[in-house]
Amino acid sequence: MARSNLLYAHSGGVTAVINATASAVIGAARAHPGRIGKVLAAHRGILGVLAEDLIDTAALDDAALQRLSLRPGGVFGSCRFDLPRADTADGKRVMDRLFEVFAAHDIGHFIYNGGNGSMDVVGRLRDAARERGYPLVCIGAPKTVDNDIAGTDCCPGFGSAAKYLATSMLEAGLDIRSMVGSRGSVFVMEVMGRNTGWLAAATALAAGGDADAPPHIVLVPEAGFDEEAFLAEVRRVTERLGYCAITVAEGIRNADGSLIMEKSRDSRGYVQLGGAGSAVARMIHERLGYKFHWAIPDYLQRAGGHWLSAVDREQALAVGWAAVEMALDGRNGCFPAIRRLGEAPYRWEVGTEDAAAIANLERTLPAAFVRADGLHVTAAACDYIRPLIEGEVPQPTAGGLPDYGTLALPPVARRLPPWQA
Amino acid sequence: MARSNLLYAHSGGVTAVINATASAVIGAARAHPGRIGKVLAAHRGILGVLAEDLIDTAALDDAALQRLSLRPGGVFGSCRFDLPRADTADGKRVMDRLFEVFAAHDIGHFIYNGGNGSMDVVGRLRDAARERGYPLVCIGAPKTVDNDIAGTDCCPGFGSAAKYLATSMLEAGLDIRSMVGSRGSVFVMEVMGRNTGWLAAATALAAGGDADAPPHIVLVPEAGFDEEAFLAEVRRVTERLGYCAITVAEGIRNADGSLIMEKSRDSRGYVQLGGAGSAVARMIHERLGYKFHWAIPDYLQRAGGHWLSAVDREQALAVGWAAVEMALDGRNGCFPAIRRLGEAPYRWEVGTEDAAAIANLERTLPAAFVRADGLHVTAAACDYIRPLIEGEVPQPTAGGLPDYGTLALPPVARRLPPWQA
Repeated sequence: MARSNLLYAHSGGVTAVINATASAVIGAARAHPGRIGKVLAAHRGILGVLAEDLIDTAALDDAALQRLSLRPGGVFGSCRFDLPRADTADGKRVMDRLFEVFAAHDIGHFIYNGGNGSMDVVGRLRDAARERGYPLVCIGAPKTVDNDIAGTDCCPGFGSAAKYLATSMLEAGLDIRSMVGSRGSVFVMEVMGRNTGWLAAATALAAGGDADAPPHIVLVPEAGFDEEAFLAEVRRVTERLGYCAITVAEGIRNADGSLIMEKSRDSRGYVQLGGAGSAVARMIHERLGYKFHWAIPDYLQRAGGHWLSAVDREQALAVGWAAVEMALDGRNGCFPAIRRLGEAPYRWEVGTEDAAAIANLERTLPAAFVRADGLHVTAAACDYIRPLIEGEVPQPTAGGLPDYGTLALPPVARRLPPWQA
Repeated sequence: MARSNLLYAHSGGVTAVINATASAVIGAARAHPGRIGKVLAAHRGILGVLAEDLIDTAALDDAALQRLSLRPGGVFGSCRFDLPRADTADGKRVMDRLFEVFAAHDIGHFIYNGGNGSMDVVGRLRDAARERGYPLVCIGAPKTVDNDIAGTDCCPGFGSAAKYLATSMLEAGLDIRSMVGSRGSVFVMEVMGRNTGWLAAATALAAGGDADAPPHIVLVPEAGFDEEAFLAEVRRVTERLGYCAITVAEGIRNADGSLIMEKSRDSRGYVQLGGAGSAVARMIHERLGYKFHWAIPDYLQRAGGHWLSAVDREQALAVGWAAVEMALDGRNGCFPAIRRLGEAPYRWEVGTEDAAAIANLERTLPAAFVRADGLHVTAAACDYIRPLIEGEVPQPTAGGLPDYGTLALPPVARRLPPWQA
């Protein structure tokens, strides 16, 4: 089999361990110099491929790769961009350009680190390569804090965000308990997750099974939001304990399916969720008269490199290594998936899934993970999430802050005319 | 000198290291069994004293004291309550009750852990004890994340919140940089600090002196908010870098002194600040059209026990030990203050200050710490804050979360009729 170069790109929202996957891809590819030549990375995902904006990772020595593996955020840049449909003129033009760039840089392996939408791209690129007779092996690598990719037991990125949020609820709970006054205090934390309640559910780990410990209410998109039932529960908890701590998933919806609050919708229709937490906090204040605080960790929850889940990071590394092995095995159009083998102790392995088969699916909380009244999650949800936040990862520090260092990312010389977007 | 009991109470907002001070007070008091009998703690601060709602700390063994010293939030509960003026009927009634409770429980030492308002209480209780001929030594212990207590170089609680926020800006900055698109992205983080910009200034440490690194703008209350100058700077940064990360102190004000956004004012006139971050983010979106995200760490920033500043915790312990020593030395009406002795290496000691002399003062950022254009802080501000976030504190964990344990806090039997508030 001919030697060719490998191109790595990531897509969509980044995570605290996405660079761990990138570092594993680079490290694994370097272990096969007879099969893989250069290891390139696209700057800003698929948009960088179109723009021929590529980075040569050869500048990263072993120490830099190690630093990369501990650094949150996607160091190569990401983007939100959907490939236009293949049967449109624009779709053909975009696909032509991608293959021009692949050919110009002798790319024989493409590893795309992303979510459900990215798995669709992996399947389409595989098909397009076959149609064109271009020798490209496309492999996905799962990544998302939302944990909503189908076909895998969990998604690298989720465990660290889950750990961050469960810790945040635990710690904020100790604070708010200190401040409990005579009039009732409410704390609302809005978390990410898009249309799913995985991250919201993770905050339930803070309670450690104690029904009186925060969070007392967990609102997830999988349960329709019932304002009256919700307020009755807030009142019941607050009258009993003097306070109430509530997790609100950004994607909660009214019974009619409308979002509790939409912030904005961008030009490609991507809805930027937000505002559910403040909407709920204000509702409580107006209807029940309680004092309230709300927190929106926003990017902090998916960038918490100082408090990574060791299990999550191991899985992020493992899918990177596995993706390269799959590429070398010619498992075109597949992605490495986490499979759960056992509990207590938690055991897992990396399996192989077909990217096209799960493309654009969205894995939501199963019904058994949501309490019947829709106002909390179940012990089964906690049992599922608990192993994924296990373990801590020591981070080098300097001056009291994580030392994420700086990384040399030299661009690859362009060989094609500029792309007109 | 007669043996008597010691009462510890805290007041106002809690911190990640307030329990460290409490544990130090308890530990130091136990070292003087000939002078100090029981060590009691008030449940919910001065309100707990009025209600004769006291806790016997004897139930905490050495292992429990160590756990207490690592646990965020105020385990004994806090409150916001201003002593009514002594020359009012209510003021006399409240003071009478406090001394009834002191007498009923043989309290000869009172240590009050709080902010500027609490130092006023310390001075007033000392004066009232003298007037009444009651043998009470009152000592303050500084505590606030806002760092706004006069007479001390810094305040226990600030360093850990500062470390949390600088780390958050550093990590969120890596995330947003990954996501930079063609249309400009703005990230706004709203931080606490009440009328001061100490916590906002702390986020500047994330940049490590790099003018292109987040945060690009730091808005502090000490500089009047000039919307046009601010938006021009946001545009300038975003056009140069593709994104802009902004720290907004909750207490920023317009040039006319009005808050950018007031959330609510409670019955005793205590303004609950909030909304400045979202107000600024929306302003940018409406005026400049940029995409935006905003984060409000809220309680998380002052409860981050998983990421304490070692220096901050050492100082929290030191003021607890020193407060007991001052009580035994009869330094009535004083409080232990942190004095800075040197830089590189940072050296400090605990001095003694008069509580009444600094009561109700508010220490704001000096002019030399705010950039001339009012849109950032200076290197001098960073030099001041940097040593206060130094060092990490290992936390025991269980199941991937900090293990703050549970603490036995048995109530002391009441000896007085109930208090009618």
